[in-house]
Amino acid sequence: MKLTVLGCYAATPRTFTNPTAQLLEVKNRYFLIDCGEGTQVQLRKNKVKFTKISHIFISHLHGDHFYGLIGLISSFSLLSRVADLHIYGPKGLKEIIQLQLKLSHSWTNYEIHFHELDVKESELIFEDEKVTVHTIPLKHRVYTNGFLFREKEGDRKLNIDAIKELSIDVCYYKKIKKGGTVTLDNGQVVDNEQLTFPGEPTKSYAFCSDTAYTESIIPLVQEVDLLYHESTFLESESQLAAKTMHSTAIQAATIASKANVKSLLLGHYSTRYESISSFKEEALTFFSNVQLADDGKSFEI
Amino acid sequence: MKLTVLGCYAATPRTFTNPTAQLLEVKNRYFLIDCGEGTQVQLRKNKVKFTKISHIFISHLHGDHFYGLIGLISSFSLLSRVADLHIYGPKGLKEIIQLQLKLSHSWTNYEIHFHELDVKESELIFEDEKVTVHTIPLKHRVYTNGFLFREKEGDRKLNIDAIKELSIDVCYYKKIKKGGTVTLDNGQVVDNEQLTFPGEPTKSYAFCSDTAYTESIIPLVQEVDLLYHESTFLESESQLAAKTMHSTAIQAATIASKANVKSLLLGHYSTRYESISSFKEEALTFFSNVQLADDGKSFEI
Repeated sequence: MKLTVLGCYAATPRTFTNPTAQLLEVKNRYFLIDCGEGTQVQLRKNKVKFTKISHIFISHLHGDHFYGLIGLISSFSLLSRVADLHIYGPKGLKEIIQLQLKLSHSWTNYEIHFHELDVKESELIFEDEKVTVHTIPLKHRVYTNGFLFREKEGDRKLNIDAIKELSIDVCYYKKIKKGGTVTLDNGQVVDNEQLTFPGEPTKSYAFCSDTAYTESIIPLVQEVDLLYHESTFLESESQLAAKTMHSTAIQAATIASKANVKSLLLGHYSTRYESISSFKEEALTFFSNVQLADDGKSFEI
Repeated sequence: MKLTVLGCYAATPRTFTNPTAQLLEVKNRYFLIDCGEGTQVQLRKNKVKFTKISHIFISHLHGDHFYGLIGLISSFSLLSRVADLHIYGPKGLKEIIQLQLKLSHSWTNYEIHFHELDVKESELIFEDEKVTVHTIPLKHRVYTNGFLFREKEGDRKLNIDAIKELSIDVCYYKKIKKGGTVTLDNGQVVDNEQLTFPGEPTKSYAFCSDTAYTESIIPLVQEVDLLYHESTFLESESQLAAKTMHSTAIQAATIASKANVKSLLLGHYSTRYESISSFKEEALTFFSNVQLADDGKSFEI
């Protein structure tokens, strides 16, 4: 997994900072997460081919998380896209996009599949042979979801020595890699664990923006490899965080610690702060493995 | 009058080029004309105070001319704007903006006055004591207007020598500057022309984007000081211009020549061209005073 932060600042786009958008690469799938104004330019600056993106996940309908979507959809059209596009986001997003396409007489040549969300519990919204995506219900001023991206278990690795000792034919290898047992000619059933080693460990990424501090997400993000948790404010603005239903860096670190995640990534910084280094300093007092998101920065998971 | 080009490229925003947006300063009024995605960042880069903008004119509902509007409206809110905002644009724009504000629970604290346009003849849409704005109906794939900004006649200048010779009292000066006559004690009526010189010449700016070649605009932009006329294509792509209802540089120059304008400003260049200098070269074959718009460039009128 590789995460590229296209924008990680709160509220309005500015000369040198961009609103929320991230690109997650998982097993050659490219998932765009949120799409603030200017995301298409950020994709260009980071040399991402537009055709690679086929799934877009929108957390909520505040402008700094989706105002760039209609422009991206239009640019896909102008660039002669033909591949289907899947968009996951709150109920209402379809109406916003379709109204604009209708009034500009700009229906797309490719198909858009809207997957509108309105459920308040975590649900599986995407699955293919390699990856699953679940929602992470968040606590904000409007209906908001985070997203949990998880690689599926891959094939187990063959224990060639054990297989040869039992003279198992090569035609069984595929079944064995998938976790199957083998029945020998003498009727003996051999357990899969005797014939294989575990496959590559799977990776997971949880995206949580925007949200007030809520322990309800802890079981959902338990032990993920990387947790992005918004930290709009520093502790000095904790009252403002509560009022606006955002989090402080320390609250993000508290969730990371209680969920025992491997690494915490902070972002969605208020532009009131001149430097973002204090976010890391404050979070480090509650959790040891903290990284700072910044526009254009990539993270290998 | 001073025109600042915030963006002047067609279709999609790119790393170094922006879609259409212009800021026109007339007698301390700041008019924003079109508002493609990223316009608020371009305003910041050009150090324009957001509070100065109180009137926004949208030519048509193609994305590269209005996708930045909802973001700008939201940013005005986040920056605690209280002053009213007037938006002039095609019918439908109000619905697009209001739907997004409603779904994001983000009603503005300031009042937005939508002036929706659907008339096909030129009409007066704005007037105050110093400036008028008329629509310029254009010929495009959707309902589109250009805009003609014209300073009103200012005060006439007093001819102090003539006034003193006739011993006219200072209390008449204001009336004289406004063009009034004076009746002397002996009953003689003195014409204004005897007492004044003409005031400062008024300036005018015509914005015409996007449009196919249409001579119907010629009487509307006759002798303006500056005509911005779109030139999406060079002559080699004239068939594509006709098909997409855009203009070539030569067509823009032909309109400028037939309307006898003082200066022509080209823009809305297709991003297929590596350099924009050919637009000027081609236009110069039909009209002598040609300037090239470019992002961040200003023009004194």
